[in-house]
Amino acid sequence: MKRNLTEALSDFLFEYETPRQVLVKNKQVGIVCRLIQLFVLAYIIGWVFIYEKGYQVSDTAISSVLTKMKGVGYTKVNDTERVWDVSDYVFPEQGDSSFVVMTNYILTLGQKQGKCPSLPGRHNCTSDKDCKEGEHKRTGHGKMTGKCLDETKTCEIFAWCPVENDHVIPDPPAMMSAENYTLFIKNSITFPQFRVVRSNLVEGVDSNYIRQCVYDKISDPFCPIFRLGDIVTMSGFTFPQIAIQGGAIGILIDWTCDLDWHVRHCRPVYNFHGLYGNGLDADETKASVGYNFRYAKYYMEDSEEKRTLTKVFGIRIDILVRGLARKFDIIPTLTAIGSGVGIFGVATVVCDLVLLHLLHQKDFYKNMKFKYTTMKEEVSVMQNEMEKNSAKE
Amino acid sequence: MKRNLTEALSDFLFEYETPRQVLVKNKQVGIVCRLIQLFVLAYIIGWVFIYEKGYQVSDTAISSVLTKMKGVGYTKVNDTERVWDVSDYVFPEQGDSSFVVMTNYILTLGQKQGKCPSLPGRHNCTSDKDCKEGEHKRTGHGKMTGKCLDETKTCEIFAWCPVENDHVIPDPPAMMSAENYTLFIKNSITFPQFRVVRSNLVEGVDSNYIRQCVYDKISDPFCPIFRLGDIVTMSGFTFPQIAIQGGAIGILIDWTCDLDWHVRHCRPVYNFHGLYGNGLDADETKASVGYNFRYAKYYMEDSEEKRTLTKVFGIRIDILVRGLARKFDIIPTLTAIGSGVGIFGVATVVCDLVLLHLLHQKDFYKNMKFKYTTMKEEVSVMQNEMEKNSAKE
Amino acid sequence: MKRNLTEALSDFLFEYETPRQVLVKNKQVGIVCRLIQLFVLAYIIGWVFIYEKGYQVSDTAISSVLTKMKGVGYTKVNDTERVWDVSDYVFPEQGDSSFVVMTNYILTLGQKQGKCPSLPGRHNCTSDKDCKEGEHKRTGHGKMTGKCLDETKTCEIFAWCPVENDHVIPDPPAMMSAENYTLFIKNSITFPQFRVVRSNLVEGVDSNYIRQCVYDKISDPFCPIFRLGDIVTMSGFTFPQIAIQGGAIGILIDWTCDLDWHVRHCRPVYNFHGLYGNGLDADETKASVGYNFRYAKYYMEDSEEKRTLTKVFGIRIDILVRGLARKFDIIPTLTAIGSGVGIFGVATVVCDLVLLHLLHQKDFYKNMKFKYTTMKEEVSVMQNEMEKNSAKE
Repeated sequence: MKRNLTEALSDFLFEYETPRQVLVKNKQVGIVCRLIQLFVLAYIIGWVFIYEKGYQVSDTAISSVLTKMKGVGYTKVNDTERVWDVSDYVFPEQGDSSFVVMTNYILTLGQKQGKCPSLPGRHNCTSDKDCKEGEHKRTGHGKMTGKCLDETKTCEIFAWCPVENDHVIPDPPAMMSAENYTLFIKNSITFPQFRVVRSNLVEGVDSNYIRQCVYDKISDPFCPIFRLGDIVTMSGFTFPQIAIQGGAIGILIDWTCDLDWHVRHCRPVYNFHGLYGNGLDADETKASVGYNFRYAKYYMEDSEEKRTLTKVFGIRIDILVRGLARKFDIIPTLTAIGSGVGIFGVATVVCDLVLLHLLHQKDFYKNMKFKYTTMKEEVSVMQNEMEKNSAKE
Repeated sequence: MKRNLTEALSDFLFEYETPRQVLVKNKQVGIVCRLIQLFVLAYIIGWVFIYEKGYQVSDTAISSVLTKMKGVGYTKVNDTERVWDVSDYVFPEQGDSSFVVMTNYILTLGQKQGKCPSLPGRHNCTSDKDCKEGEHKRTGHGKMTGKCLDETKTCEIFAWCPVENDHVIPDPPAMMSAENYTLFIKNSITFPQFRVVRSNLVEGVDSNYIRQCVYDKISDPFCPIFRLGDIVTMSGFTFPQIAIQGGAIGILIDWTCDLDWHVRHCRPVYNFHGLYGNGLDADETKASVGYNFRYAKYYMEDSEEKRTLTKVFGIRIDILVRGLARKFDIIPTLTAIGSGVGIFGVATVVCDLVLLHLLHQKDFYKNMKFKYTTMKEEVSVMQNEMEKNSAKE
Repeated sequence: MKRNLTEALSDFLFEYETPRQVLVKNKQVGIVCRLIQLFVLAYIIGWVFIYEKGYQVSDTAISSVLTKMKGVGYTKVNDTERVWDVSDYVFPEQGDSSFVVMTNYILTLGQKQGKCPSLPGRHNCTSDKDCKEGEHKRTGHGKMTGKCLDETKTCEIFAWCPVENDHVIPDPPAMMSAENYTLFIKNSITFPQFRVVRSNLVEGVDSNYIRQCVYDKISDPFCPIFRLGDIVTMSGFTFPQIAIQGGAIGILIDWTCDLDWHVRHCRPVYNFHGLYGNGLDADETKASVGYNFRYAKYYMEDSEEKRTLTKVFGIRIDILVRGLARKFDIIPTLTAIGSGVGIFGVATVVCDLVLLHLLHQKDFYKNMKFKYTTMKEEVSVMQNEMEKNSAKE
């Protein structure tokens, strides 16, 4: 028994199975099949390996973004000059990847809690009956007290008074000077799988260069300093148009890196696009135009809490980072090869179809390719043969 | 030599190799094998292609979110009425994808830098020895001055005075009216690989519809306006419960798009879930309940800096976007086919095992399938044969 | 006709094709081929299945992060003591995943809109001609009025006055006590495809444990409370160095989960690294050192708007979450097997090359493996044979 096992094992080790094949010498079939095989080979090598780089694994990046605006703005409203610096016009102040640059505003000074008439247009009334005490609208400013005020023909409300009137948006926008502000972006990305860390301050971008450069798609594609006016233009807006009602812009930093090359070739590409319609595709825009929010500065005056309400219209900038790195790896390479061999198998199936079903001599080839067995009759014949065979060994 | 090369080339081009096969006419084996092959075919077509859509490549989205709350809140504490608008109760104010809606609060008015007793419970003392000068606790409010105060039996500390007392959280919560606030979400996503940009204001969601709609899972699944009370309920909380101590809610916007269809079928699905336990699974919740933070409004009074400290309890809403688009591509299609052919190979291996090891007539089939070669003896014989063969050609 | 179809069908169903093979009994070839096959098998099982877990599908996480700082800071500048609590030194206050802890600052008190000299070094002048009215620098503080001031030898500007002087950064940093602040991180992740939700407050991290633990890589790897000084050290900075000019630190929470095991094994790993250079790699750092931003507290004094401008130097902490879960799935398993079978096919091709081209007896083996057909002459012979064959059946 043991003997048999070792014998079987050595038999197994020292022998090798290879399929028997028919070599069909037929010009038509030969050319068709070689062409199909050539095509499959070209596909595997050309497309999967060279074009799609199927021999690589990919990893997405984890990223962190810091921003810093620079620039000073001026406004002159009712002969009152005012200067605006970064602390005044950027929200939030700490340099996040998503922030707002104020370009227009409506100020409501000295608001305090109290009773005052609501704006014409909302809560219109002719008598006290039209103003139900305690009720309020979802989009209103406060709660009705139940009185109808004669002067304004609107209900009295309990709210931050006086109520903000935002029916008229300043045009031209208050801060056209925002066009010249600059934005400095610091972006660091990590590809954890490949242990690669990169910053958008790539090789060649040093402090001397930064001090003077401004991003330009062609001449300075790696300068991390962007003029706000340029950003707006590259996003498909015009500055005066977006400055009035505000808008949202996405800055997409695209890191597509082939890490089979030196890591210094892994460099960012900046793309700019308007979010939520850029005034060109009218359908989407209609639903909700512009970008604005309100914020309040609170103060105490005469022991009373007051606030300055600002309705800020501005450019909301979202910095989105997309990092995709690829690197050679043995698994996808072998998977692609293995799968390619499988497709070669498909090529053989197609050629066989031609050979066995479409050619004139198909029966001849069938005979060459296949050996038929029908049980009963042949078994005896074959078993004899087999015995002879084993006897021979 | 040259002649030989062209000959070899034409030989190669005009000939075609196809494996020779045995056609076993045996009902048992035939049926077993056809069934296995059928199963493999069904798996490849039904599962890989139709169910899992293995013929598609996928891309994840880059997204940007804007939010806007609307609504007015009221509180009446100690007969002082107060109205709260968006600038008062949303943090931060600029409409980020992650923000807090205040539902409850503890005010500490008129704090200024100075010395005052610490809260009972911390820094209890009986004499000055218990209060080491200059020491402080990590979770305390300030630094001990070294004095023990008689009235309170606690150490005196240098801190923002008076110290906040947050032992009692207002119940019922101050701003139950928050239930009726509404949240407007604008979400724009980009699938960079497919160059598709979509907004959650999909076809049919125009300004008329937005003015009046409120999100409902069944009747208005694409309305981008959400009632805060609904959000809380859909997340598995109850509003009065979450309003007291606060909590965190995730709104997951799920874009699963099959871009082989028209892009208008690419629409968001909104999901709501409580983050960090929703009061149902007690284990997780225990570790850290609720959500709160402190913020201060600073002001000058009598040339002295003072502040109003607010401990804000609120609903923290995180809007998370997950975008996954799929589209037909030739590579995964051919990879799936190639790999399927490979699995067909496995089927053949299984059938061969049955044929050659389990059947009664296995030896007969072995003989049919294999041609044995043992070197020494046969070489001479075969070489003769070969010579005859080549002579024949 | 119908008869023929059913016959063909039953023929198809009850027969089975298996390739005919040559069993080459040759020690050299046998061993070479078995080794190649063994290697391929080892690769498929060992590498693809066990090491790379090719039988699993993967899903990336959606995550949400809350943070809370604790701790009190002290400063003593010009004999003025001051205590700083969380509302004073954290920006923004609501506990986002990206925030700043102030460690140093430059205060400019009582700024108001007006005219004042610009800082020495910028806008130097000798006469009014050097100061062009209305002009301003991008990095300046305001607009020139056209006057050259004698006392300072600089141009007068219209700006927030007095102008901030940030030439000297306090050293040692004002708030060295920041080292002892603690950071509490709550992180919730969702793997949507596997419907798994996890929090970084894993099993065993309950409220008792949280009250007293501090994160340590070895002894307390799951404690969600981090000492700021430890974070800085683990990122490769030293605290006094980063505290002066500020810096950016990334905390990477890495969830790599094998969901074929119990979900409790899915636990976070915290990594800390400096973003934008940690003072060690000098090249990157040079371009832009430190982290700072300005923010202003506004107040009314004598009916005039004033502000306190603070240039904040601080540690910017970005919490980045990376979640990757893997779970068994039938598709990648079968794809890996299918592709493996394909690679087996490659092994056969290699062995055939050895057999048919490198061995001495290659012609013998060629003859065994291949059956040659040349059309014209043989067709007649073969067709006869075929007829005989069919006659025999």
